[in-house]
Amino acid sequence: MQPPSGKIEGSRHFYPVRVYFEDTDLSGIAYHANYLKWCERARSDLLRVLGINQRAAFEAGEGVYAVSEAQIKWRRPARLDDELVVETRALDLRAASARMEQRVMRGEELLAQVDIVAAFVTPEGRPRRQPDAWRRLFEQFVTKDEE
Amino acid sequence: MQPPSGKIEGSRHFYPVRVYFEDTDLSGIAYHANYLKWCERARSDLLRVLGINQRAAFEAGEGVYAVSEAQIKWRRPARLDDELVVETRALDLRAASARMEQRVMRGEELLAQVDIVAAFVTPEGRPRRQPDAWRRLFEQFVTKDEE
Amino acid sequence: MQPPSGKIEGSRHFYPVRVYFEDTDLSGIAYHANYLKWCERARSDLLRVLGINQRAAFEAGEGVYAVSEAQIKWRRPARLDDELVVETRALDLRAASARMEQRVMRGEELLAQVDIVAAFVTPEGRPRRQPDAWRRLFEQFVTKDEE
Amino acid sequence: MQPPSGKIEGSRHFYPVRVYFEDTDLSGIAYHANYLKWCERARSDLLRVLGINQRAAFEAGEGVYAVSEAQIKWRRPARLDDELVVETRALDLRAASARMEQRVMRGEELLAQVDIVAAFVTPEGRPRRQPDAWRRLFEQFVTKDEE
Repeated sequence: MQPPSGKIEGSRHFYPVRVYFEDTDLSGIAYHANYLKWCERARSDLLRVLGINQRAAFEAGEGVYAVSEAQIKWRRPARLDDELVVETRALDLRAASARMEQRVMRGEELLAQVDIVAAFVTPEGRPRRQPDAWRRLFEQFVTKDEE
Repeated sequence: MQPPSGKIEGSRHFYPVRVYFEDTDLSGIAYHANYLKWCERARSDLLRVLGINQRAAFEAGEGVYAVSEAQIKWRRPARLDDELVVETRALDLRAASARMEQRVMRGEELLAQVDIVAAFVTPEGRPRRQPDAWRRLFEQFVTKDEE
Repeated sequence: MQPPSGKIEGSRHFYPVRVYFEDTDLSGIAYHANYLKWCERARSDLLRVLGINQRAAFEAGEGVYAVSEAQIKWRRPARLDDELVVETRALDLRAASARMEQRVMRGEELLAQVDIVAAFVTPEGRPRRQPDAWRRLFEQFVTKDEE
Repeated sequence: MQPPSGKIEGSRHFYPVRVYFEDTDLSGIAYHANYLKWCERARSDLLRVLGINQRAAFEAGEGVYAVSEAQIKWRRPARLDDELVVETRALDLRAASARMEQRVMRGEELLAQVDIVAAFVTPEGRPRRQPDAWRRLFEQFVTKDEE
């Protein structure tokens, strides 16, 4: 029995999400802020699949990713029991940050689009160069020319 | 690509959970209230596996489950990236409610034990008899003599 | 004993927030998605202060606001026990939506800036003209020429 | 402009809460796990009012409170915009833990009752004697003979 796990195909990472009661609000649809939680789960899963151990790095005092910017468009509502997939592409990899595009899909329907910048920071919150080994792992995944 | 799904073995339902940043607090471990979210995901999954469609019943105005009682013991902390399993057993099935025992496990370690009563209520919040078809489906799962 | 309540001064609404354990994650700072919750509390409070009853409108089947776009910049981290203020200005009022700028402040420090579009939708999720009475109440608050 | 703050009267602490969209789920009422968040806010506020600085203690490596047991009864639902008060009494103060009774009230109506044990633990999660200064501050608040 495995917990939810995503996978990489080409330059995209796919991560499955199901919508639970905790995700909805009284308007009957998923609460807008929870899309950011799903996207963070997907990014954490992407790192895990790439072989990056965030917890070990944090416990060793190296640092942690912090979201510094996000632009979100909610197109259609997600509802209880919906089976969603978060698609993630890396658009840009800098020394201390990465820019990613994430799409929350329900089958072929685009529910939300998220453009996000995650910055690596020290435990005190100052920007820090991402570990070289991580950059090398991550570089393979960055979208090159296509689309 | 399937979202997280549990399974029934004998009189137990097993549901996998991974711990994400959203689950932790600054003390470094999972925030206590989030165990209730994991347990609710597991119960919703149990209903789904049994063939019960909670969303259709709610949208048809029939009713919804509401937690009326819980007793929780947190034994050991869960940490980022931990792979957990929520084990659920139904201990008692009444006309309008069900009592369940849930255990949050990390491998062989018991992290938390939750005894919970979920009551079926009308959209206005009044107790209501569970649908007969649901009771029949659920009855098969109720723990009989053992343990 | 009053629950947290904001106030309008000129063309700005101010809403106080304190940071609790639930808001933080293991990196020791407030989890990024929770800023959207604080901003939603502030917008709900703004409507309440203006005399708009969201719950009555929803229960009467008229509709509800749904966030359709957000652009967020997280500048500095918020920490446990911090006393924050969410400042809200309305930048644009359309027939079926409103655009607002929100700033999460700790004293004079800007922690995050959020530009948000909230659309009024029917219970089924389709765009709908905001109630005229609400528009009239809201119009007084929209930032005119200044800044 | 002050963030939400509670107060002590006799042997009770009172803390105000308003119900926001984030607190509700599609059944139209507050999601059950969120009562634990409200109760935690109330306990943190109680410590603050008593003069205990949890954040400083945590940052100094002394320790933090972790909830080890809770018994909860949800009696009536809370709804959007409801103004609630969490009443907290300390029932028992031990070397490394405290037992408290909390009631979530809407005016005279009891919405939920929570009996909770909070244990002081080291940053590594091991039980630890509460700081003496804290115990002295807390002792004044413990309910003696009454009720």
